[in-house]
Amino acid sequence: MPVLGVDIGGTKTIVAVADNGGCILAQAKISTPREQGPAAVLSEIESTLKRLVEEAGIEPGEIQGLGIGCGGPLDRDRGVILTAPNLPGWDNLPLAEYFETAFHVPAYLDNDVNLAALGEARKGAGVGVDHFAYFNIGTGIGGGIIIDGRLYRGCGNAGEFGHQTILPDGPECLCGRRGCLESLASGTSIARRAREQLSDYPESLVLRYAGDADTITAEYVFKAALDGDLLARRIWKETAEYLGLGIANVVNILNPRRVILGGGVVKAGDLLLDEVRRTVKERAMAQLARDVEIVPGVLGDQAGILGAIYLALGRD
Amino acid sequence: MPVLGVDIGGTKTIVAVADNGGCILAQAKISTPREQGPAAVLSEIESTLKRLVEEAGIEPGEIQGLGIGCGGPLDRDRGVILTAPNLPGWDNLPLAEYFETAFHVPAYLDNDVNLAALGEARKGAGVGVDHFAYFNIGTGIGGGIIIDGRLYRGCGNAGEFGHQTILPDGPECLCGRRGCLESLASGTSIARRAREQLSDYPESLVLRYAGDADTITAEYVFKAALDGDLLARRIWKETAEYLGLGIANVVNILNPRRVILGGGVVKAGDLLLDEVRRTVKERAMAQLARDVEIVPGVLGDQAGILGAIYLALGRD
Repeated sequence: MPVLGVDIGGTKTIVAVADNGGCILAQAKISTPREQGPAAVLSEIESTLKRLVEEAGIEPGEIQGLGIGCGGPLDRDRGVILTAPNLPGWDNLPLAEYFETAFHVPAYLDNDVNLAALGEARKGAGVGVDHFAYFNIGTGIGGGIIIDGRLYRGCGNAGEFGHQTILPDGPECLCGRRGCLESLASGTSIARRAREQLSDYPESLVLRYAGDADTITAEYVFKAALDGDLLARRIWKETAEYLGLGIANVVNILNPRRVILGGGVVKAGDLLLDEVRRTVKERAMAQLARDVEIVPGVLGDQAGILGAIYLALGRD
Repeated sequence: MPVLGVDIGGTKTIVAVADNGGCILAQAKISTPREQGPAAVLSEIESTLKRLVEEAGIEPGEIQGLGIGCGGPLDRDRGVILTAPNLPGWDNLPLAEYFETAFHVPAYLDNDVNLAALGEARKGAGVGVDHFAYFNIGTGIGGGIIIDGRLYRGCGNAGEFGHQTILPDGPECLCGRRGCLESLASGTSIARRAREQLSDYPESLVLRYAGDADTITAEYVFKAALDGDLLARRIWKETAEYLGLGIANVVNILNPRRVILGGGVVKAGDLLLDEVRRTVKERAMAQLARDVEIVPGVLGDQAGILGAIYLALGRD
């Protein structure tokens, strides 16, 4: 009995067909045509999935269910996106209903980062780990919590690690509050802080690589840091310290065995991880800091789609 | 089949005998003779418990188990206190073993605040609430987490809410780190901040009530705040804001249905709660702030001993 998975991102969407053991039989990555609005995006996802089903030689009647990951906040019980910061116009969108109608199977919706945590739990860096916290550090910062091997959701939206307050009077966050971890350590924040500090480092490689202050991204800052640029190194050190503070708070609260880091920013590897680990050791209670291993995820972009598949299989 | 419970505090210890439904049959509160060292404390607890057992008309052979709550960090599996900040000299103390030998029953050790959370879960403000976070705000700040109606412990010491970082460059905490919630909002911190700011408010009622700067306590600051004293009001407002920040972080991470507040500082009631609720609403994500109710515990000092009894009954 195969299942379908959909992982909707602000720029890319992954869809897949999998068997009932969670092995992917066919998969496609498409650009999310978000500027065309939700109807166009959903129609594109539907037709791509139908093509995959056909290519995999599966009869539509065999499909058991469908799992969807998307940015939140969302109403999981009703399968509705409340608002999606990365997808303008996706307000009160009944996503599960759309796919139930399209494929005549039950469809389940959850937060994309929760599902990435679930993916890592079943096939990645969380296999065999009873309780862990998963941080996704990309454009924004999201989180997922696994307890007793299952997704912990609280009232439905647990794991907003990116919106804990790190500096009460810090920079404004997209969420409207101040000094959230996301406003200090996301990819967006790395680029913003580099731009802000550029005047102190007029010779910075960051500017040379990006060409223009407006086109600075976290990737350019990372590349410049690898090449020894002072501004870039300073920004990465700050980023790692803020991240370490946020992780230490989660460690003090949850005392997890492992913290798994995913998302684009983690591609910086040891440049980030060594400093993060140092800060966690400094900021978390000694015993709790000893209990936890801080490791990168192993599934990369596949974590979310695998989680969507396990959600469809009821193994969340 | 009755059980025994022990809740060891830095100044007072409660011991009790209960039936297998968790109803207390006999109870005593004794001063913890901590300056006499652990052997004297344990011997005092043992003799008080034996007297209670006798008074309740219970044969020693009927007793099914014994639960102990004590400040940590501790090694729950081995039943050993690693260090107890409020009990000098209690290092690597095999507490469970002591009581197993004394009463010939299995004895279980857990963090006192975890057990207070468990007490509130079974008989207090957490009855019928699947997942909640419990804050104990007294001399220090501790926490407990209930998930799916059971104590969540992580690797053994989850719920160190008091040691999340609120101000990265804030005052030094007893734990050796800086700007922990405990260093900003505990009873000890309330008294310290009042002392520090006294020079700006030489006429403050706090000083009049306490008699001397050295004898200022959170209670005097509270009494002065009720009487409209400016310094005291300022300290309470700050305290509530820091607490609100710490609670908002836990709300963003756990998305609990309820946050239950216990401990001496909560006796301030609405003076504290209204401001705490306002800050949580401001600092937590909108949906998560709507999901949560922030309420005082209902069991007071009884929460911990009831938790110890449920631990002995295996209902943790």
